[in-house]
Amino acid sequence: MTDTTREIRLASRPEGEPRLENFALAEAPLPEPGDGEVLVRNSYLSVDPYMRGRMRDVRSYIPPFGVGEVLQGGAVGQVLTSNDAALEAGDWVESMLGWREHYVAKPDGLRQVDPSRAPVSTALGVLGMPGLTAYTGLHEIAKAKEGETVFVSAAAGAVGGVAGQLARIAGCRVVGSAGSQEKVDHLTEELGFHAAFDYHDADLAQALREHCPDRIDVYFDNVGGEHLDAALGRMATFGRVALCGMVSAYNLEEPPPGPRNIAAVIVNRITVRGFIVMDHYDLMERFATEVTGHIHSGELRYRETIVEGIERMPAAFIGLLAGENIGKMLVKVGPAAE
Amino acid sequence: MTDTTREIRLASRPEGEPRLENFALAEAPLPEPGDGEVLVRNSYLSVDPYMRGRMRDVRSYIPPFGVGEVLQGGAVGQVLTSNDAALEAGDWVESMLGWREHYVAKPDGLRQVDPSRAPVSTALGVLGMPGLTAYTGLHEIAKAKEGETVFVSAAAGAVGGVAGQLARIAGCRVVGSAGSQEKVDHLTEELGFHAAFDYHDADLAQALREHCPDRIDVYFDNVGGEHLDAALGRMATFGRVALCGMVSAYNLEEPPPGPRNIAAVIVNRITVRGFIVMDHYDLMERFATEVTGHIHSGELRYRETIVEGIERMPAAFIGLLAGENIGKMLVKVGPAAE
Repeated sequence: MTDTTREIRLASRPEGEPRLENFALAEAPLPEPGDGEVLVRNSYLSVDPYMRGRMRDVRSYIPPFGVGEVLQGGAVGQVLTSNDAALEAGDWVESMLGWREHYVAKPDGLRQVDPSRAPVSTALGVLGMPGLTAYTGLHEIAKAKEGETVFVSAAAGAVGGVAGQLARIAGCRVVGSAGSQEKVDHLTEELGFHAAFDYHDADLAQALREHCPDRIDVYFDNVGGEHLDAALGRMATFGRVALCGMVSAYNLEEPPPGPRNIAAVIVNRITVRGFIVMDHYDLMERFATEVTGHIHSGELRYRETIVEGIERMPAAFIGLLAGENIGKMLVKVGPAAE
Repeated sequence: MTDTTREIRLASRPEGEPRLENFALAEAPLPEPGDGEVLVRNSYLSVDPYMRGRMRDVRSYIPPFGVGEVLQGGAVGQVLTSNDAALEAGDWVESMLGWREHYVAKPDGLRQVDPSRAPVSTALGVLGMPGLTAYTGLHEIAKAKEGETVFVSAAAGAVGGVAGQLARIAGCRVVGSAGSQEKVDHLTEELGFHAAFDYHDADLAQALREHCPDRIDVYFDNVGGEHLDAALGRMATFGRVALCGMVSAYNLEEPPPGPRNIAAVIVNRITVRGFIVMDHYDLMERFATEVTGHIHSGELRYRETIVEGIERMPAAFIGLLAGENIGKMLVKVGPAAE
């Protein structure tokens, strides 16, 4: 046992692309768990693009991170000591309690993870928040239907890969964009996308004309910016756009130009709907049951990009925003489940 | 009787603001009505902003006007001769058969107008397509609810004035923007808007902060451009934007910059939905019954800006796009109902 743990704090607010000096690795005291509390050792920490937004000092749907404070994100770990009947030593739990190796907490904010269902790391990816985001955007927000064309941007990311595969499973034609040939191959060869292209090489409007000959019924947007503009120009009548993220803008100090094709929203009677997964946790059980089934049947695959050691967390986050990951980006800080 | 009639043709496609020379007044032959046909003398012709779009040679939800052909828009007229059992001489009908003084047609494309319900001119305005557009956008697309704040742009126009009043009748707080002090006074003094401002004088973002202290739940957008951008920045969580028109862009040769505040659509979980009234004519009876009731009770008022003579039709259309009208802009080309 230890009476300190290590954590990653926000040292200063990034301007533009985050740099290593915006983060600090620190020792923090680790109290003994009191009555009704548990001690958890984290195994995997999650880096997610939305966290860039919380590094700004602006009003949003969740408060900004404080400078000097530990950064918060999803984590999966194992209970070492339990002083509460709700959990036992050895149980696996997901938390939102920060980029740290250990923590002490009451069990009510923790979500128990079943290690027999799938590797515990999936609680942060395909079976966790990113997977639920994909499920919500595709089925609740955009209401994709069999036979439709679904376009997914950042399709090789943790959300995009699940969104595209769920669309394929629903009987849609699925087209993805990604940032390298390796990712494009991953989409078409591993994840079963019907078509994919590297947006760095492409004129987006032309790529969408080529790969979506019947136009786009559903656009699952993780990128914003030029992707959104081009997709709006290629939507079918009564098309739906699920606005999930705008990673193209996260490192910009000023908002980028908006979509000039906005008039297409009227002409083609498009619905553009933004959503935040935390409004949809009521879907978690249904989602997890369905997607676990798809994983076990082999219909849905996932990749993880795993970086080792909490000290590499800032680099992992910077790399995530630069598109270095395929699938879910994780930082391993402790032992995995047996 | 006459064997010719006068009509307005598209002489050339406008570039930027339409000019008088883009239009031509012409004599056209008027055949005798054959078996199953009626001869109609128009009394009112409708000028509508969406017609500017049809003057471009681009794909849209309706085909473009042809150069040298008569311009099509709504019209209300009276049957002079009927050779069909469906209509009698003296009946009033609405058509989409063009900017002409008389026409011969079969009755199936005509909608009969009841002159005892309201003046026949209202079939082109408050009780016609513009009114149904307002009703559809507010109730079907944006689903405005009692207690919400509704912002309407181009609020002194034929659509905006009805949208704002229907929102007031539904128990909403209603804020409008318009292009002159006279229009602002019309909104607050005649139409019962809770607040209104002249967008020429205003910083839009600041005006919306001032007049929508609880943010905007529903934005009924007739304008696009800077109005849409500012409204997106002031939307409440789970707000809805009904995209009805973009009059700010109709005379532009290139699309204007898109809304930089598009990221707010995610942060505030906004739904932006474009619509075209022609998809919603199934609502016409319900709409007409409700709005006729509101007119008779005095809860809903309307204004018409009437120009006399078919030769002044091009000037009326140009003036409409320049915002010269309050309420519905009409051209009177024949006698009104008794």
